[in-house]
Amino acid sequence: MNESGRVEAFSDGVFAIAITLLVLEIKVPEGAADHLWSAIGAMWPSYAAYVVTFLIIGIMWVNHHTIFQYIARVDRTLLFLNLMLLMGVAALPWPASVVAAYLREGNAAHVALAVYSLFLVFHALVFGAMWWHLTRTGHLFDDRVDVEAARATRGRFALGSIVYPITVGLSFVSAPLTLAVHGLIAVYYAFNQVPVPTKAEAAPSASSGS
Amino acid sequence: MNESGRVEAFSDGVFAIAITLLVLEIKVPEGAADHLWSAIGAMWPSYAAYVVTFLIIGIMWVNHHTIFQYIARVDRTLLFLNLMLLMGVAALPWPASVVAAYLREGNAAHVALAVYSLFLVFHALVFGAMWWHLTRTGHLFDDRVDVEAARATRGRFALGSIVYPITVGLSFVSAPLTLAVHGLIAVYYAFNQVPVPTKAEAAPSASSGS
Amino acid sequence: MNESGRVEAFSDGVFAIAITLLVLEIKVPEGAADHLWSAIGAMWPSYAAYVVTFLIIGIMWVNHHTIFQYIARVDRTLLFLNLMLLMGVAALPWPASVVAAYLREGNAAHVALAVYSLFLVFHALVFGAMWWHLTRTGHLFDDRVDVEAARATRGRFALGSIVYPITVGLSFVSAPLTLAVHGLIAVYYAFNQVPVPTKAEAAPSASSGS
Amino acid sequence: MNESGRVEAFSDGVFAIAITLLVLEIKVPEGAADHLWSAIGAMWPSYAAYVVTFLIIGIMWVNHHTIFQYIARVDRTLLFLNLMLLMGVAALPWPASVVAAYLREGNAAHVALAVYSLFLVFHALVFGAMWWHLTRTGHLFDDRVDVEAARATRGRFALGSIVYPITVGLSFVSAPLTLAVHGLIAVYYAFNQVPVPTKAEAAPSASSGS
Repeated sequence: MNESGRVEAFSDGVFAIAITLLVLEIKVPEGAADHLWSAIGAMWPSYAAYVVTFLIIGIMWVNHHTIFQYIARVDRTLLFLNLMLLMGVAALPWPASVVAAYLREGNAAHVALAVYSLFLVFHALVFGAMWWHLTRTGHLFDDRVDVEAARATRGRFALGSIVYPITVGLSFVSAPLTLAVHGLIAVYYAFNQVPVPTKAEAAPSASSGS
Repeated sequence: MNESGRVEAFSDGVFAIAITLLVLEIKVPEGAADHLWSAIGAMWPSYAAYVVTFLIIGIMWVNHHTIFQYIARVDRTLLFLNLMLLMGVAALPWPASVVAAYLREGNAAHVALAVYSLFLVFHALVFGAMWWHLTRTGHLFDDRVDVEAARATRGRFALGSIVYPITVGLSFVSAPLTLAVHGLIAVYYAFNQVPVPTKAEAAPSASSGS
Repeated sequence: MNESGRVEAFSDGVFAIAITLLVLEIKVPEGAADHLWSAIGAMWPSYAAYVVTFLIIGIMWVNHHTIFQYIARVDRTLLFLNLMLLMGVAALPWPASVVAAYLREGNAAHVALAVYSLFLVFHALVFGAMWWHLTRTGHLFDDRVDVEAARATRGRFALGSIVYPITVGLSFVSAPLTLAVHGLIAVYYAFNQVPVPTKAEAAPSASSGS
Repeated sequence: MNESGRVEAFSDGVFAIAITLLVLEIKVPEGAADHLWSAIGAMWPSYAAYVVTFLIIGIMWVNHHTIFQYIARVDRTLLFLNLMLLMGVAALPWPASVVAAYLREGNAAHVALAVYSLFLVFHALVFGAMWWHLTRTGHLFDDRVDVEAARATRGRFALGSIVYPITVGLSFVSAPLTLAVHGLIAVYYAFNQVPVPTKAEAAPSASSGS
């Protein structure tokens, strides 16, 4: 396994663990033996937070992998930015729990969603910084990547840095709507991801291990 | 590692974490210093929920792997269906906890098992949808698979979608019996899995990495 | 990755997660702002349970890996026995928590250690059954293994099935002593593991992936 | 995968799980519906403990990997020392939780940071012992390593064993400062790691899998 493969495997582990730890946020209703159906129904904010955050981490993983499959070398800056990225991903079960706890709590719901959205702003910023670093010289990419074209996608990659701050504002309009929008953005990205531009003639090379 | 290998490794991680997180559902009896044996004995619903759910996730992993070893390419729909599947698997510690908490609680036990069974209905539906998508054109399979024969197994693959709704009904007859039936279904599948049909002449090819 | 490699990777994941989840058993002392040193010191049963169980799972992993590196094929029985084995390993954080909670609680400490020891009896039995199954025909081993000699080691492999029941009895003599003995057995196995007998002329073959 | 690759994959799993479990240390504020912003703000010790410990485990992983990529063989002593190392890494979520709980609690904050620092002393000692064992004969390294030069780095590797005891003392001067220093040390190591000395003529060999 080459150097970037090792970093990617470690990152994949963190993504897989964070996404699976989300379930710990959903509590077992206590003392609800005589009204378990309604007690379980009343917990819908937990399910909503679970489903949306699961999708978000899942798509983050796909995006992370899409980029890393074209990376042949890692430098210290990439290693550090990737660690920042993972720090944000691994933290997501916490804002998800806050949303689950406060989504039905009037004003607190706005705060909960704003906090949740700020975590996604952080993720978008670090992801953008990583892409910026990768495309600056292009020397970490394997030779399939069209560095010039990759650099031109910076704007589209920075889109998340614009969309997510808007959801911070939207949190104060409607908390459930903001959560729904986050779910929709995740589904949108699941089917419309920005591809890494490759050279026209590029075929997967044996050494790149895609 | 090829693209489907990466998706499978991520999925394997989620299966392994979900199956291991199950133990957090078994609580340590509190304040039972003078009757620890009986306190531990009284927790049998936790052990039953643990064992049955462990077997179920274990078999789900085997089935998932059996299919993925024949997949050479992934498209966006497969990626999304797989994420849905993992969402259901990763969530299972929660219904297991609900069963553990309410299995001896009269009416609530019926509700708990119905909820538990509904999670397995969801899994069977998504698994069926994934198989449907894979066999529709067959272009994601590697060349060992007999696509025509694979399409013909859709009915048997859909069996779970029939069996599990029945267990939802059975939950209201007897909760412990329903849990036992889930355990038996898991053991049955452990030894009687539907194989992916391969071409008569097919030998494992070097590229398929089985 | 061949079939047994995939099963081993999944098993490795469960071992790694179970061993890391152990830390959740160590609680943060509450309301101890004015006597944090002594509060932390009073928690020594948690540290003892952590260290001993960490060593035990670590050695179990080494033993599991030692065998699996010689396995070239998996059948349904091996898959099922391995799932049983993992079920016992993944459950260990629970008896460790029980020991941590009750090690200083008089009679309850005896019960806690007996329960802990019974989990290791279970592990030894399943491990013995797995070795029995593997050596019965030997057709799952790769061709480096001397099946005849491997079969002759069954007695030594069954040793655990004798030692661990003794620790169940020892639990009722002294709980801390029993925990210490479990730690010592783990350290002993760390340096004196039964090797899988290989053919005299056997050299690691390219296909066996050791 | 060769023997050291298997040990490294297991270790990577423990690092990835420990770093991701850290988030469980950050609690959801309870009953704070009417002052969620301030309740979330008041939890800054949790965030500080999370960020610093995340960086520390991340850098520990990088350092561990840097060494293991040059290891071709494992012996029992290395296996045991590595298990000790992982035991310390996997335990880190606990001192992080203690720091989060007591960082604003006067005297208790000093104790919490001292305990936290002692865990890092332990890590530095085991890491030093592992490096000592590896460089003593050098027979576990692959042939790229300049064993003579590696042995000469023992002093610099032992640096941590000097720096971390100082932070234990610093804990009693200022707890927040000590936590900040730990964060700075981690960032420093992220960009200034001691490299494993390789032979001048050494090129990555096919068998070493770096």
